[in-house]
Formats: sequence, structure tokens, C-alpha cells
Amino acid sequence: MTDSETLAERLRDGDLRLYELDDHADHDTAAEARRRFVEGETGATLETIGDYSFPAEAAESNVENMVGAAQVPMGVAGPVAVAGGAASGDYYLPLATTEGALLASVNRGLSVIDASGGSTARVTKNGMTRAPVFRVDGVVEAAETVEWVAENEPRLRAAAESTTSHGELLGIEPYVVGDSVYLRFSYDTKDAMGMNMATIATGEACDVVEAETPASLVALSGNLCSDKKPAAVNAVEGRGRSVTAEVVVPGDLVEERLGTTADGIVEANTRKNLIGSAKAGSLGFNAHAANVVAAAFLATGQDEAHVVEGSNAITTMETRERDGQGSADLYASISLASLQVGTVGGGTNLPTQAEALDVLGLRGGGEPAGENAEALAEVIAVGALAGELSLLAALSSRHLASAHESLGR
Amino acid sequence: MTDSETLAERLRDGDLRLYELDDHADHDTAAEARRRFVEGETGATLETIGDYSFPAEAAESNVENMVGAAQVPMGVAGPVAVAGGAASGDYYLPLATTEGALLASVNRGLSVIDASGGSTARVTKNGMTRAPVFRVDGVVEAAETVEWVAENEPRLRAAAESTTSHGELLGIEPYVVGDSVYLRFSYDTKDAMGMNMATIATGEACDVVEAETPASLVALSGNLCSDKKPAAVNAVEGRGRSVTAEVVVPGDLVEERLGTTADGIVEANTRKNLIGSAKAGSLGFNAHAANVVAAAFLATGQDEAHVVEGSNAITTMETRERDGQGSADLYASISLASLQVGTVGGGTNLPTQAEALDVLGLRGGGEPAGENAEALAEVIAVGALAGELSLLAALSSRHLASAHESLGR
Amino acid sequence: MTDSETLAERLRDGDLRLYELDDHADHDTAAEARRRFVEGETGATLETIGDYSFPAEAAESNVENMVGAAQVPMGVAGPVAVAGGAASGDYYLPLATTEGALLASVNRGLSVIDASGGSTARVTKNGMTRAPVFRVDGVVEAAETVEWVAENEPRLRAAAESTTSHGELLGIEPYVVGDSVYLRFSYDTKDAMGMNMATIATGEACDVVEAETPASLVALSGNLCSDKKPAAVNAVEGRGRSVTAEVVVPGDLVEERLGTTADGIVEANTRKNLIGSAKAGSLGFNAHAANVVAAAFLATGQDEAHVVEGSNAITTMETRERDGQGSADLYASISLASLQVGTVGGGTNLPTQAEALDVLGLRGGGEPAGENAEALAEVIAVGALAGELSLLAALSSRHLASAHESLGR
Amino acid sequence: MTDSETLAERLRDGDLRLYELDDHADHDTAAEARRRFVEGETGATLETIGDYSFPAEAAESNVENMVGAAQVPMGVAGPVAVAGGAASGDYYLPLATTEGALLASVNRGLSVIDASGGSTARVTKNGMTRAPVFRVDGVVEAAETVEWVAENEPRLRAAAESTTSHGELLGIEPYVVGDSVYLRFSYDTKDAMGMNMATIATGEACDVVEAETPASLVALSGNLCSDKKPAAVNAVEGRGRSVTAEVVVPGDLVEERLGTTADGIVEANTRKNLIGSAKAGSLGFNAHAANVVAAAFLATGQDEAHVVEGSNAITTMETRERDGQGSADLYASISLASLQVGTVGGGTNLPTQAEALDVLGLRGGGEPAGENAEALAEVIAVGALAGELSLLAALSSRHLASAHESLGR
Repeated sequence: MTDSETLAERLRDGDLRLYELDDHADHDTAAEARRRFVEGETGATLETIGDYSFPAEAAESNVENMVGAAQVPMGVAGPVAVAGGAASGDYYLPLATTEGALLASVNRGLSVIDASGGSTARVTKNGMTRAPVFRVDGVVEAAETVEWVAENEPRLRAAAESTTSHGELLGIEPYVVGDSVYLRFSYDTKDAMGMNMATIATGEACDVVEAETPASLVALSGNLCSDKKPAAVNAVEGRGRSVTAEVVVPGDLVEERLGTTADGIVEANTRKNLIGSAKAGSLGFNAHAANVVAAAFLATGQDEAHVVEGSNAITTMETRERDGQGSADLYASISLASLQVGTVGGGTNLPTQAEALDVLGLRGGGEPAGENAEALAEVIAVGALAGELSLLAALSSRHLASAHESLGR
Repeated sequence: MTDSETLAERLRDGDLRLYELDDHADHDTAAEARRRFVEGETGATLETIGDYSFPAEAAESNVENMVGAAQVPMGVAGPVAVAGGAASGDYYLPLATTEGALLASVNRGLSVIDASGGSTARVTKNGMTRAPVFRVDGVVEAAETVEWVAENEPRLRAAAESTTSHGELLGIEPYVVGDSVYLRFSYDTKDAMGMNMATIATGEACDVVEAETPASLVALSGNLCSDKKPAAVNAVEGRGRSVTAEVVVPGDLVEERLGTTADGIVEANTRKNLIGSAKAGSLGFNAHAANVVAAAFLATGQDEAHVVEGSNAITTMETRERDGQGSADLYASISLASLQVGTVGGGTNLPTQAEALDVLGLRGGGEPAGENAEALAEVIAVGALAGELSLLAALSSRHLASAHESLGR
Repeated sequence: MTDSETLAERLRDGDLRLYELDDHADHDTAAEARRRFVEGETGATLETIGDYSFPAEAAESNVENMVGAAQVPMGVAGPVAVAGGAASGDYYLPLATTEGALLASVNRGLSVIDASGGSTARVTKNGMTRAPVFRVDGVVEAAETVEWVAENEPRLRAAAESTTSHGELLGIEPYVVGDSVYLRFSYDTKDAMGMNMATIATGEACDVVEAETPASLVALSGNLCSDKKPAAVNAVEGRGRSVTAEVVVPGDLVEERLGTTADGIVEANTRKNLIGSAKAGSLGFNAHAANVVAAAFLATGQDEAHVVEGSNAITTMETRERDGQGSADLYASISLASLQVGTVGGGTNLPTQAEALDVLGLRGGGEPAGENAEALAEVIAVGALAGELSLLAALSSRHLASAHESLGR
Repeated sequence: MTDSETLAERLRDGDLRLYELDDHADHDTAAEARRRFVEGETGATLETIGDYSFPAEAAESNVENMVGAAQVPMGVAGPVAVAGGAASGDYYLPLATTEGALLASVNRGLSVIDASGGSTARVTKNGMTRAPVFRVDGVVEAAETVEWVAENEPRLRAAAESTTSHGELLGIEPYVVGDSVYLRFSYDTKDAMGMNMATIATGEACDVVEAETPASLVALSGNLCSDKKPAAVNAVEGRGRSVTAEVVVPGDLVEERLGTTADGIVEANTRKNLIGSAKAGSLGFNAHAANVVAAAFLATGQDEAHVVEGSNAITTMETRERDGQGSADLYASISLASLQVGTVGGGTNLPTQAEALDVLGLRGGGEPAGENAEALAEVIAVGALAGELSLLAALSSRHLASAHESLGR
């Protein structure tokens, strides 16, 4: 009888619980025991789930009650030239997804961008946020608290930064609703996505606020952060990196490679991404940015739930005339307001994810610190731009095609 | 020289492109060739990415330019009793994530729910949507088009349903903005998530609209669908399944197992999830539903980009007094407006994902059709509820603890 | 000693309260007494407030504790030709406002529209809504309630319509959040704005719901109506009338009368009204529709608080090329999603407001019923369109002017 | 033949246009001539519109094409004790409205507040904003522009403040979307509502930005201001004054005067104002704040179109236990995020409006500057709080009443 069999039996007997196994065996054995137990309870077989390509202890800080791994197909798109604030050169973009045609679509878009001379990208804002909520007696105490915070930011900075070797407090924005006070702390977390860093640092600062003001902490996150919810505060003010990628596609390339015209793409973008999203009451004015963000996040070990904010993106398309030449060029851009990425910590250390970061040349801390995460944000934005271009062109050319047909009738 | 080496060389020589490899070799060899090539171009090693546990051709319809797989740690939480409209019995919930503590948090929540007698859940609305945008000359043609559609819904239904053996058209909602007309088609897609089904069926109906009205199709998706964007139309009207899970936790369990009180949790929910989200301009009034949705989607082969809409959730907490007894009970619920799930198609056929669905007993088509997807929606909602309970309790008990400390001063 | 002096003295003595005066004197005397009292208490003189041009009893159903009237300057703009579904012919639009330049701006816009052959307008949706919220035990009862409502709509219609001679129930849309059920009733209220009608009718239907289902009414309005709040449900689904007005302005008129080009206006509209509003997390994609709505509402006796929803408007601008001719034409439209207007009831019977409706030829009930309110919606939309055209042209031409200057440098 | 008859005839002959009359006669005569003309064209009589109580020239800067005035019934509610940051003492609140029952409702609420010891109020944020949009070549220029602005804020402040004797530039917040740059300027405009002041000052600063950076101004307002649109940027960050009013109503008063319980009101607030608004995709989490804002704005000469932002309000209700006593007290608050008010300029100088400000003791500039507008914001907030209390109590007590009835059956 192997260890895992013994352990599985103790699970069945109620002698042990799923989460207690790691105290009785190494992580791989514990995972095997869980698989045996779950197989017994449910009749499922967990063969491929159990056939993972890394030592279970490598995932110790990423998961509990581990049984194995989900395996999601990964492809690569590119190469594409990127002239970013941090990114520079040619990149292959690894994407993990189960949605057929996504890789092909992004690849086509990147190819057109590359043929147009590559994409320019910039991070225009940076700040990981955490916004605790405090209870006060009423608005007088609320005003007192807000005033104290404004006057004592250096002291709160010292407290917050005492918990981290890399993070820097950028600012604190207060919000008052009745007898609740929200303080939105913003940090430069360098190459880390930085949620944990921000949470720990903010917790330390909260102790000071509680000690010095009438405010009592109710929750370390008061949803004005706002984490993993589709909130205007992120779409407007940003969270993580705000990043724009753009390209000017020459008119002849629009026709030859995308099978449409700049005018056609502009119309599709206006009626779908701008007016359609306006009518939908949306915070996302794009075609499918979330697809690329989700696939890139999955490949590179980002937090999949941050896809929510990753979709706060605005795609713009406009024609640009060139004197004395044929069809108009196309200016295309995408601006992602709240892209939360890191190249250290979280899932980035897992083997397949680390390899994917290596494909980008962006694994681990950058020099200077923050450079790698910034570059990753830029390259993902370029991928999202490729997806927008490709899908809008497909929609637009299909329309053109059917227009041609109908004219032929 | 192996085939993959030859192919990689031809890639290097520019003789072949990444996406052309599948025409020259089987999928696994093509993936190997791409890995060799990418390794050469970038200096990365793709060893663990290449060590996937399924034949590459199994992912043929899920990815292009495949190089291997991303492996994401998977754990299980539960068991939990669910009394749903479709789900019934005890469930283990598989979750794949890289966020440490998530499994433990959900597991704790499920344990409390189970000890409270399990969760009740219901799908309250169901409809996968697709909303093409048409160009008309002006509002007179727009009104004509809308009127024609209203009067000819049977004909459009026939066209749409001619493309699918399972899907049913539920209705068409028109929206007019200037010279743009949006028609939001809604379908019962049974056990499939149904985006492709809805798109194809709508495309067929669009041909009829174009033939019979002055309207010209601009884009098969006009963003009033709304797919993978944080849009109010989904949060209000739903997309996919609208599902609620709930539980009444006895007051003594709240104290013993969650270390807080019903009042404490209600306050945290009100100040954070309701008022905090209100102030943030949010469509998500919850603590971290997206975490559970993302992890369950990843484990079971759902479309990760649909996490965006999965976060359109409202969490409610209220105290319920019991006569003649001690502390108040806690009523807890979560209502996810737009959870898009399937148990057939998409990523559900991939080996690890199919196994995870087996753990739930929900792999493949249900009887009657739609039953499995409905049950999956209900179980994921219960998982999200567990996450809410656990996190709010943690926030609330930390506060209580510090309150106790401060009283002790 | 006059009656009002006696009454004012009794107010000062605490013998009477402000709202009790109408039981002791006619309305004008009561108002005079209140003015005397307030003058004494505050030192203000209420001379012009007291110099109103109608018998106070005419306002009996519009105000309590009346002291007189606010007088707001009123102007007229136009004439403009309107080809609507209900409006037809030339209209002068009365506007009451304190914002200088508004009348001039609207007048300029209407003049251009008129010179372009007038505006086409259509009401594309109509329905005044009221959405009570019910408490149920949990989601099972919620589902039961929703099902019962769906199956018994005729019975609820009979109850609702028993309270009104004109109103018609159009439909009931259910929404479930945990143990709350919201039922959004929609009515055709003909020429009345219809809030009271909808509320009373819904109250009657609620009695039936409470008698036949487990649901208990918590509030007759559950904010999914949504009344006088900036809510997506109205911007997406409409409330009152959804109305579009449009015009094609010939290219030469754009240049001569608006001092700019179609391209210039389109750019301003895209960067400001579409992208700017997108970035602002807005439900209003227009320049200043609320200005015209507020001023027209004030002049014609509408509910000023409904300006909130009146601002849920999308302005579109596009160039339209004409073969063989000079500069491109401009297609301009505005679509107001939730314009709540009436020509009977509310403030429409007050003397100055009734006269303003006479200027439009839209006072009182239309033939058929609803025709006048529909026409009023269309004419206000044309006014809003004029405001958009005029302001965007001003912005755009200023830019052109400064561009010319800089070129001249 | 009088002058106005002559002028009216010239209008009919097409010899003069409506807006040209003021060059040919005094304002009252011009208004009379317009009335005659409009009466002739439309068949309406404008007798009461023409019977206004102020010299027409007093409205010269408020309206063009004047024909007279709209008269809206005005009442007073109160008195109520207010302990604000600027407001202090007892206030009567003048309200102009056509909505029956509003005055009575607010009056009841104020009476309860007053009996509870009055309301505490505070302005927690202050800043009138204007956000021009600039065109740049792409994101590199956008980043340059943003950087230049950050480094040269003193120079922009000097330019902006050179145009105003009172206004102070508080800050500039940049936003980038593709090749558009938005700069949100915020000003302390003291006792003026300040839109014009902010616009003129920002225009001056824009000249500097255009001269020193690659950015070209497209529109002086780019909708990130955001003026008169329901935008999250205002609900989150504020515009004009962010103001909170609150009260603790003793439990016995809740029962005696409001006919309900604190628990009953809290439930109605939670299901309606919080959860109902959440489900509606709303930026307004209140019952009917816009009613009070609209009526107070109308009475005191504010811009009626600013009611749009005035409705960005969150109402909170919570029970507060008192040891050893009976029923729980009720804490009630309302926080209006973007209340834009002034006591100088705009419509505040018109006679009836100035008298209404006198009733409040808040006419003209305050000492120190800004004090009067701040106090006005606080008093309006208290009025809105009264409206919330009264309506929620009515909803809640009706429910209690019907609950009693049903128990009696």
C-alpha cells in the first residue's frame, strides 16, 4: 500500500480532511491521495490532471488542496516590432486559450502591424491601489479623518513603505459617503502586480489611521480599489498600468492584407465599439480586448480574475489622409485603463508560465525595477491592438463582400 | 534529423510560417517544431510547456500555432450540498488558479454552507445573446426595420434555427441610435455556452433582415450583445445564465466557524460591497466573485474572457432573527447576472477540463438538454457564495479582533 | 388688519403651522400670509415672488406651503420644420432658462436645420415604468413569484388598468437579486407623462401579487423603474419616450452658416461626445442635451427632476459624400433614450406653461390619444439636436480659426 | 400703433429676425413685440407669460429672444436647524416645483430632522472642473504633453488665474486615450457656480499648452469635465461641491412622527436605494434627491441642467442601538457627489431668485468668499435628506400598515 493510498483511505474514513494532507506527506503524494479520494467519491478519473510537468511544491504558494493541473493549449503569435517606453524590439507573444481562431486572429493583426513598421506603445499611468473602508460617527469625524490623512501623508507613507522593499506609496485619495470613509492608496509596485504588497502596506497604514483618528477599520478593501469588479473608478482613474498601443497602417496594406478600407474599419469601430458600447451602458469600448488579455494572462502567470479590469479598454480608429496618394491610412489605437501585470511573484514562477515569460524576455525583475512589468503591459497592449484590427477588418470586409454581392445582383 | 528539426529550420529560413506547419506534419510534431524555432529565436526553453498530457490534435479546434500548454495548479473544494433547479446532491468543486489562499477560502466557505444544510440555487434567466448592428439611411428606415422585425419574428426564428439542432431563438430586442439599428437576439443554447451557435444563427437571420428591409449589416456584433465587455446591458438584462445561490447560516455557526457575527458580516457587506461599489461606479457589488468564476472556468474549460461578465454579481447579507434564541442567523446570497457556461463544446473536451467536469458529474450534454450547464452555473454560484462568506467573515472578524484589543486598552 | 396679517400673526404665535393655512383662508391669502411670516422670520422681502400671474388655487395640486412663484425668463427659438411621426409642420420652441447664450445657440441650430429642409424625428419606443420591490424568503420563492407573474399577466393587466381610463399595461419585466424580486411594469400613458398613473396602477397590481404569491411588497418603487436617477436601465431600455431627431446639413451650409466643415464637426463629436464620454464612464454621449431638455421642460410644465433621464442621449455625426460635389454633407442625429413628457396633467395646466404648449400647438390631449405628447417629444429632440449642432460647430470653428491663425504666423 | 406692434409687423414681413429686436427697442418692448408676433404665428395667447414681475433688461444676460417668463409655484419648507461647515442656524428652504406633495414631503422630513436636533452637514470636496480635449499625433506626443503639463502647472495656473479675480486653480488631471489628451482642470470658484469662470480660465491655459506642446485643442470641453451628463467621473471624483448631510432620529420619533421603525426604513433603503440601484446600473443610490435639488435650484436661480449631476447621490440608513432603551435610533445620511451651486452670477440675480436666496440669508458673496455657496450646498443637502427620510418612511409605513391589515385578516 503506497502512501497516497493510505492517505486516501484516511480521507474516506473522515480521519483526515483534504487540506490536512500536506502535513502528512510531500505535496505530490498529497495531490495523488486527493486524486484517489476524489476519484472514489465521484467516479471521475483524474489521469491527465495528475500528469503535470512540475513538482507540486512549486505551486505551494499558488493553490491549496491541489490535485494536479489544468492544461490549456498555448500558441505563439508574432513576431511584432514594438517601440515602447520599456519594450523594445521584436516579440513573440505566447497566448493560452481554448477559443479557436483567437491565435490566428491575433497573429494576422500582429503581422499587419509589423508590416506597418511595428507598434508604438506607452504606459501613461501606473499605480496599484487598495482602498480600505472605515466607520466614523458621522460626517464631522469623516472630515476630520480626511484632513488628518492629508496632513500626515508622510507618516502614512513611512508606515506603508516599512512593509516593502520595493513598493512606493504614490498617493492617497479620500472619499466620504455618510459615516463611511474610503482611502484609496496607490503604489508603484515595480515588477510585481502588487496586490499583496499594496494590501500589506495599506494594512500597516490603517493601524496608524485608527490610532490617530476617530476612524475604525471595517474592511481592508472597501471596493473603491476596485479589485476584480467592473468599476468606473478603474476605467477612469486606472489601476495597475494604463497603457496605449497604436499603429498607422498604410492604406494599401489595409486593402491587401485586411481586405477592407480605412473608412470601412472606422465605420465598424464607430457603430460597434463606440456607439454600440455607449448604448449598452458599457465601460468597455472595444471589440474583444478581453480575449487577448485573458490568453496572455494565462500564458504568463497573471491573475485570471484581473481580466475583468483588463477589459476596460477604448479602441479608436481614424483615417489619416496622405497627400498625393491613394487610399487613406488607418490610425488604430487601444488604451487599456487598468492592466494589472507582473513579472515576479504570483503565478509567474510556475514552470510553464516562467517559460512563457522567457519567450518574451521579460521573466523576473527588470532593470531598473518595474521595467519588465511595464514592457509586459506594452506587449500585451500590442496584442490587444492586433486583435482589434483583425476582428474589425473581418467584420468590415465581410460587409464589403456582401455589398459587392448585392451590387452584383 | 527529426521532422520537427527540419520544420524548425524551414521556419528559420522563412520558407514556412508558424501557422503553416500543421499542413506539413501532425500537430504534435508541428508544436515541437514551433518550440524549437521559438527557443532558437528567443533563447527560452519550452520544456514544461512542451510536456502536455494530451495529443495536440485534441486541441485542434481550440488553438492555432500551438507550442504546448500552460499548466495551472488545480485543487478541489467541498463537498457541499446543493439544492438547485438542476444541481442536486453533494459536489466537489475543481478550481484552477495561481492565487494562493483562494482554494482555502472557498473551502472554508463551502464547509460552513454545508454545515448549514447546503445551498439553494436557481437559474432565474437564460439566454445567450448576439446583437448585430445595421446601417440605415435615417430614423424613418430605422423605425421601418424595427417594425418589420417585430412583425416577422417567426420568419427570423426559422432562419436562425435552421442553422442549429439544439438552439432556440427566445426573442429579439431592437435598439435605435440615429442611423444605426441594433437587434439583440437571445437564444437558449442548452448545454453549450453557445456563442458560436448564436453568432451563426444570427448571421442567417441577418441575411433575411438585409434582404427584406433597408438595413445593411455593418457588424455581426454591435456590442449590445455584449460579449466580454463590462456592460450594463448584461448586468441588468443578463447574458448566459442569471443565477442565484443562497444559504441561511445559523448564528452559532457564524460565531464558531466564521469567528464573527451576522451583524458584523452585514456591516462589512453594506459598507464594502454595496456602498463602496456604489461610490466606485461599479457593475459588481461583491467581494471577489471573479476569483471563483475565473478558477472554475479555468478548471472546467470555459472561456476565460467571460470572467468579465461573470463579475457582474450582487452579494446580499442580512440578519434573520430567531425567536427565543441567541444570536441572529445570517442570510447570504449572490446573484450572478451573466454567467456564461457550457458542458459541451469549447474547452470542455480538453482532457484535464473534461476530467474536472467529471468530478462535478456534469460532463457533456444533460438530460434534458441544458440540465448540465444549468447545474454547472448553480454549482459555480455556490462556490462564489462560499468565497463571499469566507472573505467577508475574514474582514469582519479581523475588525472584531482589533475592536476587542482596543477595548482591552 | 387684513386676513393675511392675522394669519401671519398666528403663525408667529405658533398657533398655526405653514401647511395649515389653506384650511383657514383662500390660497392667495394663505400665500400672502406665508410671505409676511417668512419676511418677518428671515428679513427677506418677497415682493416679486408674490407678484405671480395666476390664481394660487390653480397651483393647488402642484405645490404646498405656497408663497408665490419663481419667474424664469422665457424665450422662443425657431421656426423649424419637423417631419415627425406625430409632429408635422413648423414649430417655435419656447425655452425657459437662466443660462445666457442657450437660446441663441439653439436658435442658430434650428435655423441651420430649417435651411437644410427641416428635421426628421421618430419616437422609437414608449413606456412609462414603475418597478416595485418585493421581499421573498429566498430564491425558490423568487422563482415561483416570477413564474406566477409570467403566467398571470392578463390578471395583473386587468388590475392595473382598472385604475386608469387611458393607460395600458405594455409588459412586466422581472429581476431577481437574492431574496428581492423587482417587477418593472411598463405602460403606455398616452398624453400624460404618466408617473402617477403608473404608480397607482402598479399599486393595484401589487395587491394581486401579494395575495397570490409569497412575495411581500417592500416599496412601490424599487429603483429599477428608474425614476430621476442616472441609471443604465433607462439609458438602455428607455423610459417614457425614446426619440431620435436627425438632419442632413448640406456641406455648403456647414461652411457658410456654421463656419466649419463636416469633418471638423465629426472629429469634435468623436473625441468629445464619444471617446470623452466613454473615458468619463458616462451614460450621456452628447454635448449639452440636458440644457435644451431642462429649458423646454421648464417652459412647458414638465417635471424638472426628469432632466436627469433626459440627458441619457447619444449624439452621432457622420460625413456623407455627394458625388460630383464639393464638401461633404453632415448627417447629425440625437437619440434621447428616456424623455418623459406629457401635455396633460402635472405642471402643464399652469397658465404660463399652458401658453407655452399653445405656442407649440400641443396643449392638452392629442388625437388620437398620445399624439400630442409624442409630438412634444419629437420637437424637444429637434431642439436638442439644434443645440448639439450649434455647440459642436462653435467648438470646431474656434479650432479652425485658431488653426488658421497659427498657419498665418 | 405702438412700437411693439411696429416691430411685430416687421417680424412678420421678414424685415427683422427675432434676435434682432433688442437692437431696435428696449428689452420689454422687444419681448412684447415677440409675443405679438408669436401669437400671430401660432394662435396662442401669451398673456401670463408676458405678465412677469421684473424689468426685462434684468434678464439680459440670462436669455435671448425673450418673450416673458415661466412662472413656477414656489413654497417654503422648514424651519430646520443646520450645523454645517458654513451653514449655521435655522433655515427655511424655498422650493419651486410643479410636483404636488413634494413640498409636503420635504416639510415633514425637515420637521422630523429639526425635532431630532437638526442636521449636521459638511462639504467634503470642492472643485468646478473643465476638461478640454487635444489632438496629438500619437501616444508618444500624448506622454510628452502630459509630462509637460505636470512640470509646468505653475505656469498654467498663472495663465488660468490671470482671467479671474476670485477663482483658484486646484489641480490638473490628465487622461490619455489613443491620440486624444484630456486635461481636467479643477477650480475653487468661491461663491460662483463657476462654469464660465472655469471655461475662460481653462481657455487661457489651453493657449499655453498649444504653444508649448505638440497638442492641438479640439474642444474646450472634452466631456471629462463632465458637464450635464450622468458620468461616473463626477459621481466618483465630484464636481462642484461634494456634500453630506446627516441626522440621528431617535427611535421614538421614528415611530411617532414617521409611523415606522428604524429597521423598516433600513430595509427599504437597502432593497430599493442600494440593491435596486445596483441592479439598475445606476449612478444614483437614493430615492428622489433630484426632486429636491431641482426645486431648490429653480427657486434659487441655479442652472436647471445641473440637476443631472445633482442626482449623483448615495443615501445610507442604519440602525443605532441605545443601551437600556427602547427601539433603535436611525442614522440617516445623504452624500451628493456633484452639487453645483452659486450665490452670485447666473440666475441668482433675477428678482424672484434673489428673494429666495434672501430667505436663506445666502444672497451674494459670502465672507470669506465661498462661504455662501458652501452653506447653500449644505442646506440643499439637508433638504434632500428630508426628502429621503420622508419618502422611505412613507414606503416603509405603508408596508407596515398592510402587514398589520393582513395579520388582522
